[in-house]
Amino acid sequence: MSCNQSIDYSLYLVTDRQLLAGKDLAATVEQAILGGATLVQLREKDASTRDFYQQAVLIKQITGKYHVPLIINDRADIALAVDADGLHIGQEDLPLHIARQIVGPEKLIGVSTATLEQALAAEAAGADYLGIGAIFPTGTKSDADSVSLEELRTIKAKVRIPIVAIGGINETNINSVMSVGVDGAAVVSAILSRPDPLRAAAYLRQLIALAY
Amino acid sequence: MSCNQSIDYSLYLVTDRQLLAGKDLAATVEQAILGGATLVQLREKDASTRDFYQQAVLIKQITGKYHVPLIINDRADIALAVDADGLHIGQEDLPLHIARQIVGPEKLIGVSTATLEQALAAEAAGADYLGIGAIFPTGTKSDADSVSLEELRTIKAKVRIPIVAIGGINETNINSVMSVGVDGAAVVSAILSRPDPLRAAAYLRQLIALAY
Repeated sequence: MSCNQSIDYSLYLVTDRQLLAGKDLAATVEQAILGGATLVQLREKDASTRDFYQQAVLIKQITGKYHVPLIINDRADIALAVDADGLHIGQEDLPLHIARQIVGPEKLIGVSTATLEQALAAEAAGADYLGIGAIFPTGTKSDADSVSLEELRTIKAKVRIPIVAIGGINETNINSVMSVGVDGAAVVSAILSRPDPLRAAAYLRQLIALAY
Repeated sequence: MSCNQSIDYSLYLVTDRQLLAGKDLAATVEQAILGGATLVQLREKDASTRDFYQQAVLIKQITGKYHVPLIINDRADIALAVDADGLHIGQEDLPLHIARQIVGPEKLIGVSTATLEQALAAEAAGADYLGIGAIFPTGTKSDADSVSLEELRTIKAKVRIPIVAIGGINETNINSVMSVGVDGAAVVSAILSRPDPLRAAAYLRQLIALAY
Protein backbone atom coordinates (compact mmCIF):
# COMPACT_ATOMS: atom_id res chain seq x y z
CA MET A 1 0.00 0.00 0.00
CA SER A 2 1.48 3.28 -1.06
CA CYS A 3 0.62 5.10 2.17
CA ASN A 4 2.00 2.32 4.37
CA GLN A 5 4.71 4.60 5.73
CA SER A 6 2.10 6.92 7.22
CA ILE A 7 0.13 4.30 9.15
CA ASP A 8 0.39 4.66 12.91
CA TYR A 9 0.29 1.14 14.35
CA SER A 10 1.15 2.15 17.89
CA LEU A 11 -2.17 1.48 19.65
CA TYR A 12 -3.91 -1.12 17.54
CA LEU A 13 -7.40 -2.04 18.77
CA VAL A 14 -8.75 -5.50 17.92
CA THR A 15 -12.46 -5.93 18.54
CA ASP A 16 -14.24 -8.79 20.26
CA ARG A 17 -17.94 -8.35 20.98
CA GLN A 18 -17.80 -10.98 23.71
CA LEU A 19 -15.57 -8.75 25.85
CA LEU A 20 -17.74 -5.66 25.87
CA ALA A 21 -19.57 -6.54 29.10
CA GLY A 22 -22.78 -5.11 27.74
CA LYS A 23 -21.33 -2.00 26.11
CA ASP A 24 -22.12 -1.13 22.49
CA LEU A 25 -19.36 -2.03 20.03
CA ALA A 26 -19.54 1.09 17.87
CA ALA A 27 -19.70 3.42 20.89
CA THR A 28 -16.77 1.61 22.50
CA VAL A 29 -14.68 1.86 19.34
CA GLU A 30 -15.42 5.57 19.16
CA GLN A 31 -14.35 6.02 22.79
CA ALA A 32 -11.17 4.04 22.11
CA ILE A 33 -10.35 6.28 19.14
CA LEU A 34 -11.04 9.41 21.17
CA GLY A 35 -8.67 8.01 23.79
CA GLY A 36 -5.95 7.43 21.23
CA ALA A 37 -6.39 4.10 19.43
CA THR A 38 -4.58 4.58 16.11
CA LEU A 39 -6.02 1.68 14.13
CA VAL A 40 -9.04 -0.63 14.43
CA GLN A 41 -9.28 -4.25 13.41
CA LEU A 42 -12.83 -5.57 13.28
CA ARG A 43 -12.79 -9.23 14.29
CA GLU A 44 -16.01 -11.27 14.22
CA LYS A 45 -15.40 -14.97 14.58
CA ASP A 46 -18.98 -16.20 14.98
CA ALA A 47 -21.11 -13.68 13.14
CA SER A 48 -23.13 -14.42 10.02
CA THR A 49 -21.89 -12.68 6.90
CA ARG A 50 -24.81 -10.24 7.04
CA ASP A 51 -24.11 -9.41 10.69
CA PHE A 52 -20.37 -8.98 10.06
CA TYR A 53 -21.13 -6.72 7.09
CA GLN A 54 -23.55 -4.61 9.10
CA GLN A 55 -21.06 -4.23 11.96
CA ALA A 56 -18.38 -3.29 9.44
CA VAL A 57 -20.61 -0.58 7.96
CA LEU A 58 -21.17 0.88 11.43
CA ILE A 59 -17.51 0.77 12.45
CA LYS A 60 -16.39 2.21 9.10
CA GLN A 61 -18.55 5.26 9.77
CA ILE A 62 -16.63 5.84 12.99
CA THR A 63 -13.12 5.11 11.75
CA GLY A 64 -13.84 7.22 8.69
CA LYS A 65 -14.99 10.13 10.84
CA TYR A 66 -11.68 10.14 12.72
CA HIS A 67 -9.47 9.10 9.78
CA VAL A 68 -8.31 5.99 11.59
CA PRO A 69 -7.57 2.96 9.39
CA LEU A 70 -10.05 0.09 9.53
CA ILE A 71 -8.73 -3.45 9.06
CA ILE A 72 -11.09 -6.41 8.61
CA ASN A 73 -10.14 -9.73 10.17
CA ASP A 74 -10.13 -12.80 7.91
CA ARG A 75 -12.86 -11.82 5.43
CA ALA A 76 -11.66 -10.34 2.16
CA ASP A 77 -15.26 -10.04 0.97
CA ILE A 78 -16.20 -7.88 3.95
CA ALA A 79 -13.07 -5.76 3.42
CA LEU A 80 -14.19 -5.15 -0.16
CA ALA A 81 -17.84 -4.69 0.80
CA VAL A 82 -17.09 -1.72 3.08
CA ASP A 83 -13.93 -0.58 1.29
CA ALA A 84 -11.87 -1.05 4.45
CA ASP A 85 -8.25 0.06 4.56
CA GLY A 86 -7.00 -3.46 4.97
CA LEU A 87 -7.38 -7.12 5.74
CA HIS A 88 -5.77 -9.11 8.54
CA ILE A 89 -5.22 -12.82 7.98
CA GLY A 90 -4.02 -15.66 10.15
CA GLN A 91 -2.66 -19.05 9.32
CA GLU A 92 -6.26 -20.43 9.15
CA ASP A 93 -7.41 -17.78 6.68
CA LEU A 94 -6.79 -17.29 2.96
CA PRO A 95 -3.21 -17.71 1.72
CA LEU A 96 -1.60 -14.28 1.40
CA HIS A 97 -1.14 -14.35 -2.37
CA ILE A 98 -4.82 -15.22 -2.86
CA ALA A 99 -5.93 -12.53 -0.43
CA ARG A 100 -3.80 -10.02 -2.34
CA GLN A 101 -5.44 -11.02 -5.64
CA ILE A 102 -8.84 -10.42 -4.11
CA VAL A 103 -8.30 -7.13 -2.28
CA GLY A 104 -5.85 -5.65 -4.78
CA PRO A 105 -2.59 -3.80 -4.29
CA GLU A 106 -3.93 -0.75 -2.43
CA LYS A 107 -5.29 -2.35 0.72
CA LEU A 108 -3.06 -3.19 3.66
CA ILE A 109 -2.64 -6.87 4.41
CA GLY A 110 -1.48 -7.86 7.86
CA VAL A 111 -0.52 -11.41 8.74
CA SER A 112 -0.53 -13.13 12.12
CA THR A 113 2.73 -14.95 12.70
CA ALA A 114 4.25 -16.70 15.68
CA THR A 115 7.76 -17.56 14.47
CA LEU A 116 10.64 -15.87 12.68
CA GLU A 117 10.18 -18.29 9.80
CA GLN A 118 6.50 -17.34 9.37
CA ALA A 119 7.37 -13.66 9.70
CA LEU A 120 10.03 -13.79 6.98
CA ALA A 121 7.73 -15.81 4.71
CA ALA A 122 4.87 -13.32 5.12
CA GLU A 123 7.19 -10.39 4.48
CA ALA A 124 8.55 -12.04 1.35
CA ALA A 125 4.99 -12.76 0.15
CA GLY A 126 4.03 -9.11 0.38
CA ALA A 127 2.51 -8.54 3.81
CA ASP A 128 2.28 -4.86 4.77
CA TYR A 129 2.69 -5.53 8.49
CA LEU A 130 2.84 -8.43 10.90
CA GLY A 131 0.91 -9.25 14.05
CA ILE A 132 3.22 -11.24 16.33
CA GLY A 133 2.07 -13.22 19.34
CA ALA A 134 0.77 -14.26 21.65
CA ILE A 135 3.28 -12.35 23.76
CA PHE A 136 1.48 -12.96 27.06
CA PRO A 137 -1.18 -15.53 27.96
CA THR A 138 -4.59 -14.45 26.72
CA GLY A 139 -8.16 -15.48 27.18
CA THR A 140 -9.22 -14.17 23.77
CA LYS A 141 -7.49 -16.67 21.49
CA SER A 142 -7.45 -20.20 22.83
CA ASP A 143 -5.18 -21.56 20.10
CA ALA A 144 -2.63 -18.76 20.33
CA ASP A 145 0.97 -19.75 20.00
CA SER A 146 3.34 -18.11 22.43
CA VAL A 147 6.20 -15.74 21.52
CA SER A 148 8.71 -14.45 24.08
CA LEU A 149 9.92 -10.85 24.22
CA GLU A 150 13.33 -12.16 23.15
CA GLU A 151 11.82 -13.84 20.07
CA LEU A 152 9.90 -10.64 19.38
CA ARG A 153 13.16 -8.68 19.49
CA THR A 154 14.79 -11.13 17.06
CA ILE A 155 11.90 -10.89 14.61
CA LYS A 156 11.89 -7.08 14.83
CA ALA A 157 15.60 -7.07 13.98
CA LYS A 158 15.16 -9.28 10.91
CA VAL A 159 12.05 -7.96 9.16
CA ARG A 160 11.63 -4.52 7.65
CA ILE A 161 7.84 -4.18 7.63
CA PRO A 162 6.00 -2.85 10.72
CA ILE A 163 5.44 -5.25 13.59
CA VAL A 164 2.57 -5.18 16.02
CA ALA A 165 2.79 -7.31 19.17
CA ILE A 166 -0.42 -9.02 20.31
CA GLY A 167 -1.59 -11.23 23.12
CA GLY A 168 -2.40 -10.29 26.70
CA ILE A 169 -1.03 -6.78 26.40
CA ASN A 170 -2.35 -4.30 28.97
CA GLU A 171 -1.27 -1.34 31.08
CA THR A 172 0.90 -3.55 33.31
CA ASN A 173 3.11 -4.92 30.54
CA ILE A 174 2.84 -2.65 27.48
CA ASN A 175 6.08 -0.92 28.45
CA SER A 176 8.07 -4.15 28.22
CA VAL A 177 6.64 -4.84 24.76
CA MET A 178 7.23 -1.37 23.33
CA SER A 179 10.77 -1.37 24.74
CA VAL A 180 11.59 -4.13 22.27
CA GLY A 181 11.12 -1.56 19.54
CA VAL A 182 7.98 -2.86 17.89
CA ASP A 183 5.79 -0.49 15.91
CA GLY A 184 2.71 -1.07 17.94
CA ALA A 185 0.82 -3.03 20.53
CA ALA A 186 -2.49 -4.67 19.74
CA VAL A 187 -4.95 -4.72 22.61
CA VAL A 188 -8.36 -6.28 23.02
CA SER A 189 -9.68 -6.57 26.56
CA ALA A 190 -7.35 -3.85 27.91
CA ILE A 191 -9.65 -1.39 26.17
CA LEU A 192 -12.88 -3.22 25.33
CA SER A 193 -13.62 -4.75 28.70
CA ARG A 194 -12.86 -1.60 30.72
CA PRO A 195 -15.70 0.52 32.09
CA ASP A 196 -14.14 3.65 30.55
CA PRO A 197 -12.56 2.70 27.20
CA LEU A 198 -11.53 6.29 26.46
CA ARG A 199 -9.47 6.56 29.64
CA ALA A 200 -8.08 3.05 29.14
CA ALA A 201 -6.90 3.93 25.63
CA ALA A 202 -5.52 7.29 26.73
CA TYR A 203 -3.50 5.66 29.50
CA LEU A 204 -2.10 3.04 27.11
CA ARG A 205 -1.13 5.82 24.67
CA GLN A 206 0.66 7.61 27.47
CA LEU A 207 2.58 4.46 28.39
CA ILE A 208 3.50 3.95 24.72
CA ALA A 209 4.79 7.53 24.48
CA LEU A 210 6.93 6.99 27.56
CA ALA A 211 8.38 3.75 26.15
CA TYR A 212 9.55 5.29 22.86
CA MET B 1 -24.20 -13.53 -16.52
CA SER B 2 -24.06 -13.70 -20.27
CA CYS B 3 -24.16 -17.50 -20.44
CA ASN B 4 -27.08 -17.77 -18.00
CA GLN B 5 -29.33 -19.18 -20.69
CA SER B 6 -27.10 -22.19 -21.08
CA ILE B 7 -26.94 -23.20 -17.42
CA ASP B 8 -28.64 -26.51 -16.65
CA TYR B 9 -30.12 -26.18 -13.16
CA SER B 10 -32.08 -29.42 -13.28
CA LEU B 11 -30.12 -31.52 -10.77
CA TYR B 12 -28.43 -29.03 -8.47
CA LEU B 13 -26.18 -30.62 -5.85
CA VAL B 14 -25.60 -28.72 -2.60
CA THR B 15 -22.76 -30.08 -0.48
CA ASP B 16 -22.72 -30.75 3.25
CA ARG B 17 -19.71 -32.55 4.65
CA GLN B 18 -21.69 -33.68 7.68
CA LEU B 19 -23.92 -35.88 5.52
CA LEU B 20 -21.19 -37.87 3.79
CA ALA B 21 -21.20 -40.72 6.33
CA GLY B 22 -17.45 -41.09 6.00
CA LYS B 23 -17.19 -40.70 2.23
CA ASP B 24 -14.74 -38.20 0.70
CA LEU B 25 -16.38 -34.97 -0.45
CA ALA B 26 -14.45 -34.57 -3.70
CA ALA B 27 -14.94 -38.21 -4.69
CA THR B 28 -18.64 -37.98 -3.86
CA VAL B 29 -19.06 -34.82 -5.94
CA GLU B 30 -17.34 -36.54 -8.85
CA GLN B 31 -19.66 -39.54 -8.54
CA ALA B 32 -22.67 -37.22 -8.42
CA ILE B 33 -21.52 -35.46 -11.59
CA LEU B 34 -20.91 -38.77 -13.33
CA GLY B 35 -24.45 -39.74 -12.32
CA GLY B 36 -25.88 -36.55 -13.76
CA ALA B 37 -25.66 -33.65 -11.30
CA THR B 38 -25.71 -30.54 -13.50
CA LEU B 39 -24.42 -27.95 -11.04
CA VAL B 40 -22.56 -28.02 -7.72
CA GLN B 41 -22.92 -25.59 -4.84
CA LEU B 42 -20.14 -25.86 -2.27
CA ARG B 43 -21.59 -25.07 1.14
CA GLU B 44 -19.34 -24.98 4.22
CA LYS B 45 -21.03 -23.47 7.21
CA ASP B 46 -18.45 -24.23 9.89
CA ALA B 47 -15.13 -24.38 8.07
CA SER B 48 -12.27 -21.95 8.58
CA THR B 49 -11.59 -19.72 5.62
CA ARG B 50 -8.46 -21.72 4.81
CA ASP B 51 -10.35 -25.00 4.95
CA PHE B 52 -13.22 -23.65 2.80
CA TYR B 53 -10.70 -22.33 0.29
CA GLN B 54 -8.85 -25.64 0.12
CA GLN B 55 -12.12 -27.56 -0.37
CA ALA B 56 -13.12 -25.11 -3.09
CA VAL B 57 -9.83 -25.66 -4.90
CA LEU B 58 -10.40 -29.43 -4.84
CA ILE B 59 -14.03 -29.24 -5.96
CA LYS B 60 -13.20 -26.72 -8.70
CA GLN B 61 -10.77 -29.25 -10.19
CA ILE B 62 -13.63 -31.74 -10.49
CA THR B 63 -16.34 -29.38 -11.72
CA GLY B 64 -13.86 -27.91 -14.18
CA LYS B 65 -12.97 -31.35 -15.49
CA TYR B 66 -16.62 -32.07 -16.32
CA HIS B 67 -17.58 -28.49 -17.26
CA VAL B 68 -20.20 -28.34 -14.53
CA PRO B 69 -20.75 -24.90 -12.96
CA LEU B 70 -19.43 -24.41 -9.42
CA ILE B 71 -21.35 -22.08 -7.12
CA ILE B 72 -19.92 -21.02 -3.74
CA ASN B 73 -22.32 -20.62 -0.82
CA ASP B 74 -22.22 -17.33 1.10
CA ARG B 75 -18.55 -16.39 0.64
CA ALA B 76 -17.81 -13.93 -2.15
CA ASP B 77 -14.11 -14.02 -1.24
CA ILE B 78 -13.95 -17.78 -1.78
CA ALA B 79 -15.86 -17.42 -5.07
CA LEU B 80 -13.23 -14.94 -6.22
CA ALA B 81 -10.35 -16.98 -4.79
CA VAL B 82 -11.13 -20.03 -6.93
CA ASP B 83 -12.81 -18.14 -9.78
CA ALA B 84 -16.03 -20.06 -9.28
CA ASP B 85 -18.92 -19.68 -11.70
CA GLY B 86 -21.14 -18.12 -9.11
CA LEU B 87 -22.13 -17.25 -5.58
CA HIS B 88 -25.22 -18.30 -3.69
CA ILE B 89 -26.48 -16.03 -0.93
CA GLY B 90 -29.22 -16.29 1.65
CA GLN B 91 -30.98 -13.69 3.72
CA GLU B 92 -28.18 -13.91 6.35
CA ASP B 93 -25.42 -13.30 3.82
CA LEU B 94 -24.25 -10.18 1.97
CA PRO B 95 -26.94 -7.97 0.44
CA LEU B 96 -27.26 -8.77 -3.25
CA HIS B 97 -26.10 -5.40 -4.55
CA ILE B 98 -22.96 -5.60 -2.41
CA ALA B 99 -22.27 -9.18 -3.49
CA ARG B 100 -22.63 -8.08 -7.11
CA GLN B 101 -20.11 -5.28 -6.61
CA ILE B 102 -17.63 -7.78 -5.20
CA VAL B 103 -17.97 -10.65 -7.67
CA GLY B 104 -18.64 -8.50 -10.74
CA PRO B 105 -21.16 -8.86 -13.55
CA GLU B 106 -19.95 -12.17 -14.99
CA LYS B 107 -20.52 -14.52 -12.08
CA LEU B 108 -23.92 -16.03 -11.39
CA ILE B 109 -25.59 -14.92 -8.20
CA GLY B 110 -28.32 -17.11 -6.77
CA VAL B 111 -30.49 -16.02 -3.87
CA SER B 112 -32.37 -18.14 -1.35
CA THR B 113 -35.94 -16.92 -1.00
CA ALA B 114 -38.99 -18.27 0.80
CA THR B 115 -41.75 -15.90 -0.32
CA LEU B 116 -43.02 -14.35 -3.54
CA GLU B 117 -42.08 -10.93 -2.18
CA GLN B 118 -38.47 -12.00 -1.57
CA ALA B 119 -38.34 -13.67 -4.96
CA LEU B 120 -39.53 -10.59 -6.83
CA ALA B 121 -37.15 -8.38 -4.84
CA ALA B 122 -34.17 -10.62 -5.62
CA GLU B 123 -35.10 -10.75 -9.30
CA ALA B 124 -35.41 -6.97 -9.43
CA ALA B 125 -32.04 -6.59 -7.71
CA GLY B 126 -30.30 -8.67 -10.34
CA ALA B 127 -30.27 -12.27 -9.11
CA ASP B 128 -29.47 -14.77 -11.87
CA TYR B 129 -31.55 -17.54 -10.31
CA LEU B 130 -33.50 -18.27 -7.14
CA GLY B 131 -33.39 -21.12 -4.65
CA ILE B 132 -36.86 -21.54 -3.23
CA GLY B 133 -37.65 -23.54 -0.12
CA ALA B 134 -37.81 -25.40 2.05
CA ILE B 135 -40.34 -27.35 0.00
CA PHE B 136 -40.31 -30.39 2.30
CA PRO B 137 -39.10 -30.72 5.91
CA THR B 138 -35.33 -31.07 6.02
CA GLY B 139 -32.75 -31.97 8.59
CA THR B 140 -30.01 -29.97 6.89
CA LYS B 141 -31.23 -26.42 7.55
CA SER B 142 -32.80 -25.95 10.95
CA ASP B 143 -33.94 -22.38 10.26
CA ALA B 144 -35.52 -23.18 6.92
CA ASP B 145 -38.78 -21.48 6.12
CA SER B 146 -41.40 -23.62 4.47
CA VAL B 147 -42.86 -23.15 0.98
CA SER B 148 -45.76 -25.22 -0.38
CA LEU B 149 -45.88 -26.62 -3.91
CA GLU B 150 -48.73 -24.19 -4.58
CA GLU B 151 -46.61 -21.22 -3.48
CA LEU B 152 -43.76 -22.58 -5.59
CA ARG B 153 -46.10 -22.67 -8.61
CA THR B 154 -47.16 -19.07 -7.95
CA ILE B 155 -43.56 -17.87 -7.70
CA LYS B 156 -42.61 -19.75 -10.87
CA ALA B 157 -45.47 -18.03 -12.70
CA LYS B 158 -44.39 -14.55 -11.59
CA VAL B 159 -40.61 -14.50 -11.96
CA ARG B 160 -38.65 -14.85 -15.19
CA ILE B 161 -35.28 -16.01 -13.90
CA PRO B 162 -34.63 -19.73 -13.30
CA ILE B 163 -36.00 -21.27 -10.12
CA VAL B 164 -34.51 -24.15 -8.21
CA ALA B 165 -36.60 -25.82 -5.52
CA ILE B 166 -34.78 -26.92 -2.37
CA GLY B 167 -35.54 -28.66 0.89
CA GLY B 168 -36.08 -32.32 1.57
CA ILE B 169 -36.19 -33.27 -2.11
CA ASN B 170 -35.43 -36.92 -2.87
CA GLU B 171 -36.46 -39.76 -5.18
CA THR B 172 -39.87 -40.08 -3.51
CA ASN B 173 -41.01 -36.50 -4.13
CA ILE B 174 -38.87 -34.98 -6.91
CA ASN B 175 -41.60 -35.70 -9.45
CA SER B 176 -44.11 -33.51 -7.60
CA VAL B 177 -41.61 -30.65 -7.49
CA MET B 178 -40.59 -30.83 -11.14
CA SER B 179 -44.24 -31.05 -12.18
CA VAL B 180 -44.67 -27.49 -10.94
CA GLY B 181 -42.41 -26.44 -13.80
CA VAL B 182 -39.35 -25.31 -11.88
CA ASP B 183 -35.98 -25.27 -13.60
CA GLY B 184 -34.33 -27.60 -11.17
CA ALA B 185 -34.31 -29.44 -7.90
CA ALA B 186 -31.56 -28.94 -5.36
CA VAL B 187 -30.65 -32.03 -3.41
CA VAL B 188 -28.29 -32.61 -0.51
CA SER B 189 -28.72 -35.86 1.41
CA ALA B 190 -30.56 -37.59 -1.46
CA ILE B 191 -27.15 -37.84 -3.15
CA LEU B 192 -24.50 -37.17 -0.50
CA SER B 193 -25.70 -39.58 2.16
CA ARG B 194 -26.35 -42.47 -0.20
CA PRO B 195 -23.87 -45.35 -0.38
CA ASP B 196 -23.75 -45.02 -4.19
CA PRO B 197 -23.96 -41.31 -5.09
CA LEU B 198 -23.58 -42.01 -8.81
CA ARG B 199 -26.61 -44.29 -8.92
CA ALA B 200 -28.58 -41.91 -6.67
CA ALA B 201 -27.87 -39.00 -9.00
CA ALA B 202 -28.62 -41.06 -12.11
CA TYR B 203 -31.96 -42.15 -10.69
CA LEU B 204 -32.90 -38.57 -9.80
CA ARG B 205 -31.96 -37.47 -13.34
CA GLN B 206 -34.19 -40.16 -14.75
CA LEU B 207 -37.10 -39.01 -12.58
CA ILE B 208 -36.49 -35.40 -13.68
CA ALA B 209 -36.53 -36.43 -17.33
CA LEU B 210 -39.83 -38.24 -16.81
CA ALA B 211 -41.38 -35.19 -15.11
CA TYR B 212 -40.59 -32.74 -17.92
